[in-house]
Amino acid sequence: MTVNEALKALGELEAVLRAYTHALGVLNYDGETVAPRNSAPARGETTAFLSGIIHQRVTAGETGELIDTLLANGEGLSPADRRRAELLKKDRDELTLIPAEEYMAYQQLLAEAMQVWHDAKLASDYAAYAPYLEKIIAYNRRLAQRKDASKPAYDVLLDSYEEGLTHATLDPFFALLHRELTPVILEVAKQPRPDTAFLNQPYPIHLQRLFTDRVMEIMGISRDDCAVGETEHPFTEGFNRHDVRIATHYHENSVLSNLYSVVHEGGHALYELGVAEEYQGTLLSGGSSMSIHESQSRFYENLIGRSRPFIEVLLPDLKALFPDQLAGVDAEKLYRAANLAEPSLIRTEADELTYSIHVMIRYELEKAMIGGDLGVADIPGEWNRMYREYLGVEVPDDRRGCLQDSHWSFGAIGYFPSYALGSAYGVQMLENMERDIDVWGAVRGGSLKPITVWLGERIHRHGRLLTPAQLVESACGGPFDPHRYVNYLKDKYGTLYGL
Amino acid sequence: MTVNEALKALGELEAVLRAYTHALGVLNYDGETVAPRNSAPARGETTAFLSGIIHQRVTAGETGELIDTLLANGEGLSPADRRRAELLKKDRDELTLIPAEEYMAYQQLLAEAMQVWHDAKLASDYAAYAPYLEKIIAYNRRLAQRKDASKPAYDVLLDSYEEGLTHATLDPFFALLHRELTPVILEVAKQPRPDTAFLNQPYPIHLQRLFTDRVMEIMGISRDDCAVGETEHPFTEGFNRHDVRIATHYHENSVLSNLYSVVHEGGHALYELGVAEEYQGTLLSGGSSMSIHESQSRFYENLIGRSRPFIEVLLPDLKALFPDQLAGVDAEKLYRAANLAEPSLIRTEADELTYSIHVMIRYELEKAMIGGDLGVADIPGEWNRMYREYLGVEVPDDRRGCLQDSHWSFGAIGYFPSYALGSAYGVQMLENMERDIDVWGAVRGGSLKPITVWLGERIHRHGRLLTPAQLVESACGGPFDPHRYVNYLKDKYGTLYGL
Repeated sequence: MTVNEALKALGELEAVLRAYTHALGVLNYDGETVAPRNSAPARGETTAFLSGIIHQRVTAGETGELIDTLLANGEGLSPADRRRAELLKKDRDELTLIPAEEYMAYQQLLAEAMQVWHDAKLASDYAAYAPYLEKIIAYNRRLAQRKDASKPAYDVLLDSYEEGLTHATLDPFFALLHRELTPVILEVAKQPRPDTAFLNQPYPIHLQRLFTDRVMEIMGISRDDCAVGETEHPFTEGFNRHDVRIATHYHENSVLSNLYSVVHEGGHALYELGVAEEYQGTLLSGGSSMSIHESQSRFYENLIGRSRPFIEVLLPDLKALFPDQLAGVDAEKLYRAANLAEPSLIRTEADELTYSIHVMIRYELEKAMIGGDLGVADIPGEWNRMYREYLGVEVPDDRRGCLQDSHWSFGAIGYFPSYALGSAYGVQMLENMERDIDVWGAVRGGSLKPITVWLGERIHRHGRLLTPAQLVESACGGPFDPHRYVNYLKDKYGTLYGL
Repeated sequence: MTVNEALKALGELEAVLRAYTHALGVLNYDGETVAPRNSAPARGETTAFLSGIIHQRVTAGETGELIDTLLANGEGLSPADRRRAELLKKDRDELTLIPAEEYMAYQQLLAEAMQVWHDAKLASDYAAYAPYLEKIIAYNRRLAQRKDASKPAYDVLLDSYEEGLTHATLDPFFALLHRELTPVILEVAKQPRPDTAFLNQPYPIHLQRLFTDRVMEIMGISRDDCAVGETEHPFTEGFNRHDVRIATHYHENSVLSNLYSVVHEGGHALYELGVAEEYQGTLLSGGSSMSIHESQSRFYENLIGRSRPFIEVLLPDLKALFPDQLAGVDAEKLYRAANLAEPSLIRTEADELTYSIHVMIRYELEKAMIGGDLGVADIPGEWNRMYREYLGVEVPDDRRGCLQDSHWSFGAIGYFPSYALGSAYGVQMLENMERDIDVWGAVRGGSLKPITVWLGERIHRHGRLLTPAQLVESACGGPFDPHRYVNYLKDKYGTLYGL
């Protein structure tokens, strides 16, 4: 096989993978947003079947041959072509470790687990969910073992979400956050609590939907390229730069919940929408890693979305939709309410200050789960114990405890640390961005465009071409330093609470 | 190949076709309901690719071999297995006539045509749509020619929606409807028009959505098996008996439009939901023909949905949601308004009396289009002329004229007659049903269950096992007689308008 033949074969394989991945993505999005409850088993079968074809094509001998041909001629290739071959090799190396039957059965399991989790969460019925989680954990441990039996299994899993990430980085990272932030959390708890009573009123959902339109407009996301659906646990799915889907969740008594879901998911969407045209349909489309993805979502959600200037821009539109509920509420009052910091139960609703403690709890649990130190039956107890110990809150039921997140149900173990890492990256990106452009002038002007252009140049447009480390270096203007994140939080909450 | 081997191969092929058809169905449903506008080209590529695999599998040599083996041993097979083989042969015979490349290009064309039609309809811009329609017509003429060059091309297309149907049946059928119904339409036009002013008010869409829930409940359709989405042109898509999708359309100023969309699509849904468990995932799942499908949808929509007892059941719920809009409206007033008969522009909104004239116009147009007597550029003019001649209405723009329906955009030419045929079948089914069960007692009791059970037994549960003719015979209790439909309409409107 010549290099040109290998490149041609790679392009053809990408077209095949694109079609199957697209179909699987739409099946998943549909399943999570609008499909009827009882559709799960048949969707599981179809998902398993189509995943099996992907497995077959990626593990096929000719795929190995084209990868070998390309990587043997690595210097002669463009960086994009070399990276395509490397990414394919990574997928192939992993899939080759899993027999096709086992892989398909796992995909079917995940499709069903998702439905079981939905029901179990609503009913706060951990026992119904436990057998599925058991199997998901077993699969992931087995996979980690096969990939590299010499390393701790959880380290192997972390690497799939962030190349090169291990507990050796994360242990001190979370230890720093815990050590530095806990005193602030305790100090804040002693201060007068900002008034949030005006948020605890009915904000009719059909009006909240109209507000979503306005948020999308400010974020500069065209509905022609990005749809907004509704689901139990908000997420974003991107098929290509002209087809991205946000799924949010409306709570009648919590208007900010949807707002920050949309801004968070909007950050993910802007990343997917910003990947360069030339990478569309290739293995370079999509985001570089989950931490980079979360750096974008958490950037928009918190650094921009919970800033005073952004609140000022939103308030008139919110008041127009909810005049009674927001009578007498000014920007300062809304800003303080939107930045209320206090230990709480739900990660996705948590304030910036306590957020990474929620993530740390999941990190510790997953490490123990995958390390074999924590059985599935003991997860709720351990979850509740950690929330008590680290955040001082009592978990009243599993719905608001260990059943709150969807991640394990789609097989993502090792994903959670991305949220804390991404949050920390974002702070450095903002500091770097402020040196280049008038960030707050743009926000005050009601358009996030200049911000998205800046991030687009440094992150979005590169898709998966660059590694997370390269992107962090480029967007942060220097090496990663979690103290900057800690300092940002101390400053912000110190000022807010007059510490 | 032994018969047992052939049956095994058939089952395996069905599993493959089920997965691809399921994925294509979800891609289509998603595309028609929630996908962003610019998603169409990439969806078209994926659709074409997956359709290409279906083409490849159905036209493969081994498929021919299994069909030959089974049909050569036809008498030894169960009726279900024989029918599975026959249906597969029908698909194979058709696909074999179309080169894979051409078939895939056509699927891509359809995915794009659908989006172009959406935009063209909104903008009333026929010129933007015409090049796509041109290609769709050319493809269908070519296909008909290949299938049977000895027959009129339109007859060949009709056969794909209703086995054995030709112009020799439809010409006199529509002539009868035209001859018999036109005098009634003219007579009705001279009578005082019922008061419908109360319908022309804002009925907020978020409240109409709640009313949909109630309608689904009365119809006995579980949301666990059937979702309701929103789209430009209402339709139903069924994947299996636990996953059916209705897509409706809300108009703020027309509360009955959504009601009758949901009842109509609900009829389709009940059919798909009622196919026997043992046929799921085989070629026998789904409906027998489009006429039979439309006989069910039009049955619920009109014979039940526009009946006085059904209106009586709905009114209290409607009044609870829309007390101001319906103040002073009683069942008789709503019944008369819901059965207002007058020549109008939009088929899906038309009353029962004028409905089949709308269908006849499409029939005449398609016959001329496919017969080569009518060019694409001349369709709007001819459409408008026929609406003037047959219904006496002036078409103000193509949005409310020849761009109103989605059918041509998904390649369905020859489908429209099913609506009139199905409507006529329904009347005979009702007369037959009334001999067996207390239809109106059930409706008054607020549950359509006994009606659905009756239809389920005679039609739904058989899926595609029986031919349309067998189903008509069984459910109508005798041969098809369009005079019964005509008499029903004359009686109903004669009474309503005191003729």
